[in-house]
Parts: sequence; structure tokens; C-alpha cells
Amino acid sequence: MSLPMKATALAHPNIALVKYWGKRDDALILPHQSSLSLTLSPLSVTTTVEFGAASDQVELNGHTAKGSERDRVLRLLELVRAQAKADLGPAKVVSRGDFPMAAGLASSAAGFAALAVAGRAAAGLPSEPRAASILARMGSGSACRSVQGGFCEWQRGERPDGEDSFAVQRFDAAHWPDVRMVVAILDRGEKEVKSRDGMKLTVDTSPYYPAWVKDAEVEVVQVREHIARRDLQALGELCERNAWRMHATSFAANPPLSYMSPGTLALILHLKEQRKKGIPVWFTLDAGPNPVLLTDAAHEVAAEALARACGALDVIRCVPGGDAELKAEHLF
Amino acid sequence: MSLPMKATALAHPNIALVKYWGKRDDALILPHQSSLSLTLSPLSVTTTVEFGAASDQVELNGHTAKGSERDRVLRLLELVRAQAKADLGPAKVVSRGDFPMAAGLASSAAGFAALAVAGRAAAGLPSEPRAASILARMGSGSACRSVQGGFCEWQRGERPDGEDSFAVQRFDAAHWPDVRMVVAILDRGEKEVKSRDGMKLTVDTSPYYPAWVKDAEVEVVQVREHIARRDLQALGELCERNAWRMHATSFAANPPLSYMSPGTLALILHLKEQRKKGIPVWFTLDAGPNPVLLTDAAHEVAAEALARACGALDVIRCVPGGDAELKAEHLF
Repeated sequence: MSLPMKATALAHPNIALVKYWGKRDDALILPHQSSLSLTLSPLSVTTTVEFGAASDQVELNGHTAKGSERDRVLRLLELVRAQAKADLGPAKVVSRGDFPMAAGLASSAAGFAALAVAGRAAAGLPSEPRAASILARMGSGSACRSVQGGFCEWQRGERPDGEDSFAVQRFDAAHWPDVRMVVAILDRGEKEVKSRDGMKLTVDTSPYYPAWVKDAEVEVVQVREHIARRDLQALGELCERNAWRMHATSFAANPPLSYMSPGTLALILHLKEQRKKGIPVWFTLDAGPNPVLLTDAAHEVAAEALARACGALDVIRCVPGGDAELKAEHLF
Repeated sequence: MSLPMKATALAHPNIALVKYWGKRDDALILPHQSSLSLTLSPLSVTTTVEFGAASDQVELNGHTAKGSERDRVLRLLELVRAQAKADLGPAKVVSRGDFPMAAGLASSAAGFAALAVAGRAAAGLPSEPRAASILARMGSGSACRSVQGGFCEWQRGERPDGEDSFAVQRFDAAHWPDVRMVVAILDRGEKEVKSRDGMKLTVDTSPYYPAWVKDAEVEVVQVREHIARRDLQALGELCERNAWRMHATSFAANPPLSYMSPGTLALILHLKEQRKKGIPVWFTLDAGPNPVLLTDAAHEVAAEALARACGALDVIRCVPGGDAELKAEHLF
């Protein structure tokens, strides 16, 4: 057997412009609706997987993973073993991210994309974005959108086994090099209600959820057109509306759920005035308090300044990122 | 002809526990859904109407009304003349409220209820809550709920002429004397988007609006049951949920509309902690930034204190109010 047995991959996180919000299948992580995201560079997670270790070992950002964190990683590698149809033995996994876990960005997206790509390579499976995206999805839903760079669309799919639920790249990073995402970190704390719990509560109790699902499929098509034309204003307006609508589904849950903090609301309401002053800046917001500002290269300094003026503790400026990729250097 | 020709009425504002949000008929002011409110004492508006004046004159809070403000008042008196089937001549109207117009409370509710009751009396029409409620509704929708005291339900009705769209008193003020509403004035400014415009935008563009309408009819029945049992916790939870859902319909409009300020969000998110400390306090919120806190007599001081600690510029403590009533003393 001449399997490589050891491989390392780097992947970037992504921010959804049309959000993923709510699972139709919890075990396979199948969404109710399609979504579309931008891959964020230079932020990244690097992961080395080696099969044939003495025992299963998982180290994430310098600490030994335990409990459900460990289980999620090992469960994904179990799927790799099944695909490789080989007895690969126990696995050693070491993963390191270069961005703060509590930034409100989905570090799990980059983490599971890197794990899926490295895991498949270590098992001798061919480089296939589609298969890697499906695998990454089963680690963390939005991870399927971090296997490729640029603008990726997670097609919800129809099949109960999830084989048609994966991300496809609509535009690569070079399509719109001028676009910028500025992450405004208003709060470094852990959020009170995890995304998966917030999603579930919303799907189960929000009377607005069905309309959200119906809308999203239309918005994915619209956002694709705005990106094709590099129309920042149209994209910005759609982004904001989509974010408000996602949060509105949670506000309407029982009990109501707000991921926004007063600081979030202050910053996002302030953008309207900024636009009146001629600064093209819009927001999107995941299930947490930290907005991500959409702007262009000419205005990223202004966007950072306004985020700081609105109380941001830290700001991360991002450009469109590339595909997840294999690296020659391993972490161990 | 022995008409009284001059009459004075006092009416209280009300705060909706299940909100009125959206018209199905703009001219007759017919709502898409039923709503239910609590009449607020000691706040009141007093209005004197005299027919047979030299010319139409409208004075509101010491200033001569002009434009649409004047037109709305005179249009309502035109309806009174039609009902009285009498040539009553021009009308002089003087109205005074004892609460700040910019408190975010619907002063128009108390104003048009007092105008309807005084106008009908001045025209010699009998005291009929139903007729007065229909009349008040055509001045300002929520005014129909201020003709009677305690807890009033505005039944949406079905008829295109609006004759079955009026408020009925479900419980009078004596049913639950212990309940308290504490108005937290966070912002005295005029709101950027008037309720009628916000409603229209929401009805026309929010994908969540149909679910809001469907829900409201169920919530009116539920809130009635909670009030019947004087169940403050159940009522509080429903109040908050209904307010979140109303605002969520606007957040989801195109473009998104937020009546909440950062201060509003800070205060309302703070209530959860207060409840954990054993203080029974919930909020409701009309189309503006100023929350109204629902609590009981034993905790109104604590509710006022927490509102002030969260930045309230002023606080008004209210108890259940009585019916709109005719007064012997006139304003002129």
C-alpha cells in the first residue's frame, strides 16, 4: 500500500452574503435553503492529518480536543475511511487557525474544509472539490463553502442522502479583486446561544421561517447577478436586507432570540449616514454581534475607521480568498 | 332645535399588547388583523367641541392646527354631521393633552377618542361606545381602543364599510388594578419614519407580513385568557414576543426599517437578567424607540429604577384607565 497517509491543507473562512439558517436534516447537515458566500483571505486554518497513528489524537490550536469537539473531527475521518475503503488505522490531527476563534467568524468553516481536504489526501482519495465539499458539510454546514475560493454557492439539494448538497464556485477570487470585507469585532465573548441551537429554535418556533426559506432561493440568484456585474451597491443592499431577514426570523422565535447587541445596532444603523456621505459601505451579520462591512479597496480605511469609531475592539480587513489547498509542510 | 352644540370629553391613551400593524383600507383605516390594548391612566387628552362657531377652528395643545393635522380633525367632525343629519355649522375644537406628544405614546389615540366622544355629544348623538369607537377609528386606527377603559379588543371586522371594525371592552380597569405599565422615554425626538408609512412599507414589502397577520388573531385570544387569569408572566411573555414579531416584520421590509435604537435594545435585552433576579418585568414597544414596561404594583419602583439605569430621560408610571367620559367643564 503506497498511500501518502499524511497530508496538510489550508482553508479560508467564508462569510455568507445570503445566509445559511436552519437544517432540514441534523445528522447530515442539510439546509432548508441555498446560500452564497465570499471566501475571506488572509484568514486561514491549516490542518495536518496522519493515518496510522498509535491512537486517535486531535489537537486544535494547541490544546487537546475533547468531548463533542473531538468527536466531530473523528466522525469526519470515519467518513474518509469509508470512502477510501481502506483500514487506515487511528488518526492524528493537528490544526491551527490564525484568527481569533471568538471573532464571531465561523472558524469551524475553515477548520472542517481544511480537515476534509487534508483527510481525503491523506487517505489517497483524489482531489475533488465536490466530494470534499460534501464531506466538509458533514463537519460543519458552512464549511462546504470554504473548499473553494471566491464566491461559492451552497446548493441545498433535494436528495435525502445529501449527495447533491454541496458548494459550487460561481466566481473565483480574481473576478472581483477590489471587493473588501472588514470584520468589526465589537464583542470577543462566546455567544449565549450557539448557531445550531438558534437555528433549531428558529426553524421550530418562528412563524416567519417558511417565508425566509422561500426568499433565500430567489436572493441567491439575485446576488449572483450583482456579483457578475460587480455592482457593489446592489450587492450591499441585498446583503443588508438578507441579514436583517435572517435576524428577523430569530427575533420572531419563541422565546425571541437576538444575536444583535446594542453596539451591533448602533454600528449598522450608522452606515446609512455614511452612505449619504458617499462612503459605499454595507453590513452583513452572522449569528453573533460582530458585523462584517462590505466595501471596496478605496474605502476600506474609511470602513475600518467608522467601525473603530463605533466601538470595535479590533478590525480585520479581508480580500477574496482562494481555494483550500494542500501544503508541502506539515504541522508535525 | 335643542342640541347641546358644545361638549367636552376626556380620553386616555392605550398601549397595545397585541399590536395593530398594517391597514387593509387606508381611507377607512381598517386593519389587517385584530389587536388588544390596555388603557393608560392617568395620562389623558381633553377635547371640547362646539358646533355653530363663526368658522372652523382647531387648537391643539395651544397651537392652531394647520394642514393635514387640521384636516383630520375636521374630517371626523364631517362624519359626525352626517350621522346627526343636521346642519350644525362650523366647529370650534380645543384639545389639550397632559403628556408629552413626543413620548412615543400614541397621543393621537386619546385625542381622536376624546374628539369622537365630544363631537357626538355636541351633535346630540347618543352615548354609544360602538359608534364612538368606529368614529374614532376613522381619525386614527388605535383611537378606537381608547373609547373604553381597561382592556379593549379591536376586532378587525370583515365588512368593506368598516361598520364591524371597532373595539370592545373585554375587561374593565377594575379587573386587574394591580397591573402596571411604566413608559421609559429614551428618546424625545420625532421618529424618522411615521407609523403609517412604516406600516405601509411593511405591508407592501415584508415577506413576513402574512404570517404576522395570521398569528395576531391567535394571540388576541391567548392574551385574553392570560388577562382573565391575571397571569402576569404569561401575559409578559406574549407581549414581548408580539412586540418582537411586529418589529421583525419591519426589519424584514425593503429597505429594512428599525424603530429600535441601540438604547431600546440595551434596555429590552436587560430585562431577562432582571427577571432572573425575581423582578417580574416585560416590555412592549410601539413603532418608536421608547419601551413600555409591564409589571405589577409591587415592582413598579424597581421597573422605573431599571429604566433610568438604562438611560431613560423620563419615566411615566401608568395604571389601567377608565372609559372616555364627558366633562361638565369646557376648555373654552
